[in-house]
Amino acid sequence: MEFEPRYLDYKKKVNESFGRQGFMELIDAKLKSIQPRYCEIEVPYSSRLTQQHGYFYAGVIGTVADNTAGYAAFSLMEEKASILTVEFKLNLIAPSDGEYLIGKAKVLKNGRTITVCRSDIYVIKDGVEKLCAASQSTLIRLKDRSDSLV
Amino acid sequence: MEFEPRYLDYKKKVNESFGRQGFMELIDAKLKSIQPRYCEIEVPYSSRLTQQHGYFYAGVIGTVADNTAGYAAFSLMEEKASILTVEFKLNLIAPSDGEYLIGKAKVLKNGRTITVCRSDIYVIKDGVEKLCAASQSTLIRLKDRSDSLV
Amino acid sequence: MEFEPRYLDYKKKVNESFGRQGFMELIDAKLKSIQPRYCEIEVPYSSRLTQQHGYFYAGVIGTVADNTAGYAAFSLMEEKASILTVEFKLNLIAPSDGEYLIGKAKVLKNGRTITVCRSDIYVIKDGVEKLCAASQSTLIRLKDRSDSLV
Amino acid sequence: MEFEPRYLDYKKKVNESFGRQGFMELIDAKLKSIQPRYCEIEVPYSSRLTQQHGYFYAGVIGTVADNTAGYAAFSLMEEKASILTVEFKLNLIAPSDGEYLIGKAKVLKNGRTITVCRSDIYVIKDGVEKLCAASQSTLIRLKDRSDSLV
Repeated sequence: MEFEPRYLDYKKKVNESFGRQGFMELIDAKLKSIQPRYCEIEVPYSSRLTQQHGYFYAGVIGTVADNTAGYAAFSLMEEKASILTVEFKLNLIAPSDGEYLIGKAKVLKNGRTITVCRSDIYVIKDGVEKLCAASQSTLIRLKDRSDSLV
Repeated sequence: MEFEPRYLDYKKKVNESFGRQGFMELIDAKLKSIQPRYCEIEVPYSSRLTQQHGYFYAGVIGTVADNTAGYAAFSLMEEKASILTVEFKLNLIAPSDGEYLIGKAKVLKNGRTITVCRSDIYVIKDGVEKLCAASQSTLIRLKDRSDSLV
Repeated sequence: MEFEPRYLDYKKKVNESFGRQGFMELIDAKLKSIQPRYCEIEVPYSSRLTQQHGYFYAGVIGTVADNTAGYAAFSLMEEKASILTVEFKLNLIAPSDGEYLIGKAKVLKNGRTITVCRSDIYVIKDGVEKLCAASQSTLIRLKDRSDSLV
Repeated sequence: MEFEPRYLDYKKKVNESFGRQGFMELIDAKLKSIQPRYCEIEVPYSSRLTQQHGYFYAGVIGTVADNTAGYAAFSLMEEKASILTVEFKLNLIAPSDGEYLIGKAKVLKNGRTITVCRSDIYVIKDGVEKLCAASQSTLIRLKDRSDSLV
């Protein structure tokens, strides 16, 4: 029960929300998979997204961590409910050197008000996937507002 | 002692590092102040930096939180040492609705290997500054590598 | 407004809640100060509270960080509302070698549902106070339950 | 390679370290399992370990989260190296109402200096195991000091 979507057309809802995020377009992010309690987002390498050594910027990794968690949580919500990030914590654990970033988030707990998620972020280089960051985040469900994922 | 820069020309070092970050240019961020153990970064509003309600995107706020902490720590390091974010935790505490974001970070502890910082991120609307996010982060000093702030 | 107590007799409310916590008695913790949005708790050294080097145990420091945040938040709540820790993040920044621990927490944001606090934990040795840990935490207000601080 | 113990007698090393922790004895904690990159610790219910509703106290849960992570990391270290908690972040996700707490930690990343772990903490009631807390933590390896797990 805890991990069943309350809105059957959750994929459409998530896709529309994703499409409204200017920043996702700016960094060329793609929504690769949305399932109940699960989300994947991919970002291709671009020199615009780098820090001073040419790796993906921590802020971009944080964005992927936060946004995958948000949509994993959003997949379980009612049509009208929305979800807001309360906080997230991100460990950067290896240099993000590669052609793609892929974030994979899963809902650990889907409470009445609070949802807790974990995201793993991988960097892909020459076809090899390596864990480069890991996050744990807290989100809040807002019953009376439509789509306001931050 | 703990909060005295080990390299007198730390402002130049920080400015050069900041200039190498492609992502800072992409989001039009400015380094407003760099002092020993302290840093301020400002980002003007742009529709490219928004989530679906037109507020600053959480990933942009996280970028400012992380980067101010990184340079606050970097201000205290030797010329050749570099600094890397180990992890950060960010609470989003009010809607980031305004014309500017300003992040202000301070070093709490400058250890031999580990540095701990806190950042406060404000949004400015009609001249009024409001706290919109707060972070606490952990950084590591790398003695043998020049500038590699992530 | 944001930091005014909604219940005038908040000191009594906090003291009674503190008195119901078996664990506070076990570690001999004292509530030293409770003000609107602010709380101090002190724990004297005991060999029962140590890790393998004779310093205060991280779990004891975490307890002080969490509990000061909880009561700082609780000071602002209505008589019937209660407060629950959603999450906390704790940096251990110096060895906790001393005769006392003192935790000092302050509310950063007191929202309708979510409260965000920071706690600084000091260790006192020979009269000198040294920062040994720093935390940032998220709490939730429960309107319809009396005192249930975790 | 990353997850192979550097000291073959790691079980003995971990057991001895655990035995030196006064606080583990105080809360009657047992080391249930130690494997390369993995650790389990169990704490039986006692009224001394409770908050005001009779559930396990958050500080006890934090202790289990931190200590399982510490020994999961320590299992991989050399005989002489020690491990120190840099920081941890803990989400409390369900009431810890039960006869036992069991913490299970796994190393995500075992770097040269920094180790990152995740811990899941379960409460057992009438034989049913329920996730009550989840943490993510950062530890540092100290090459030149023997056993100093905080």
